[in-house]
Amino acid sequence: MPPDPLTMMPGQLLARGVSRHFASLGWVTVEELVPTRGLRVDVMALGPKGEIWVVECKSSRADFMSDSKWEGYLEWCDRFFWAVDDGFPTDLLPEESGLIIADSYDAEILRMAPEDKLAPARRKVMIQKFATHAARRLHVLRDPGAGLSV
Amino acid sequence: MPPDPLTMMPGQLLARGVSRHFASLGWVTVEELVPTRGLRVDVMALGPKGEIWVVECKSSRADFMSDSKWEGYLEWCDRFFWAVDDGFPTDLLPEESGLIIADSYDAEILRMAPEDKLAPARRKVMIQKFATHAARRLHVLRDPGAGLSV
Repeated sequence: MPPDPLTMMPGQLLARGVSRHFASLGWVTVEELVPTRGLRVDVMALGPKGEIWVVECKSSRADFMSDSKWEGYLEWCDRFFWAVDDGFPTDLLPEESGLIIADSYDAEILRMAPEDKLAPARRKVMIQKFATHAARRLHVLRDPGAGLSV
Repeated sequence: MPPDPLTMMPGQLLARGVSRHFASLGWVTVEELVPTRGLRVDVMALGPKGEIWVVECKSSRADFMSDSKWEGYLEWCDRFFWAVDDGFPTDLLPEESGLIIADSYDAEILRMAPEDKLAPARRKVMIQKFATHAARRLHVLRDPGAGLSV
């Protein structure tokens, strides 16, 4: 079953809008991918040329302030963005990252993140992880009787 | 919504068993991926080291005899298999391809396919296609309100 918007957390609703925006650009996204033990990204977006962008969705000041891990995401993507709603105090966010304003229906990139390109070997690993993550989650939804877990 | 087994075609039920088997090996699969215009594979399996195998599911002699395209799949994978049920006249199948016996619950590789490794550039393209296909289908299921199509 798809997640019910009424029970989604605020950050998940932002992620939904972010994913819709990337889809409109011809990119694909997954949520909650684990690039390495102890890290889990809100949205990982894959571009048509193998670009890998990470978007962390923050629903409130407290949500942002409690995140001590975000710098760990930088080495797993070409560009890193924050996604927040239009009431978020964006002055809090580090200027050297990208900024996306989102709601649960759509999103817009307000500030492009600087590019720090993945090395080819790591890009290969990340696209493999992305493919595996997406296909496994899809399989769980397609065939609930298979007894798979994610 | 996941597909209803009661309305699935015989070939789709074989594909379900094949996909469950690959999942048990730690591989992931997608169905109906289009490697190039005019071709659509029943099951594409992606291994942990980036291996790409194609499995065509044939529910009957007629289903096999009407397939004039299968040789076109060979150049898009490292190994090519037929998946059939245990009543299928397997003598019909070309010996130089792999053989999987399947039902809707599981499958078993009876004859390993010969390996004809993809060139690195094509493997990269195929893993990107696999990732894109899986993530887009997942997105459609996760967020039916997004108005996406596959």
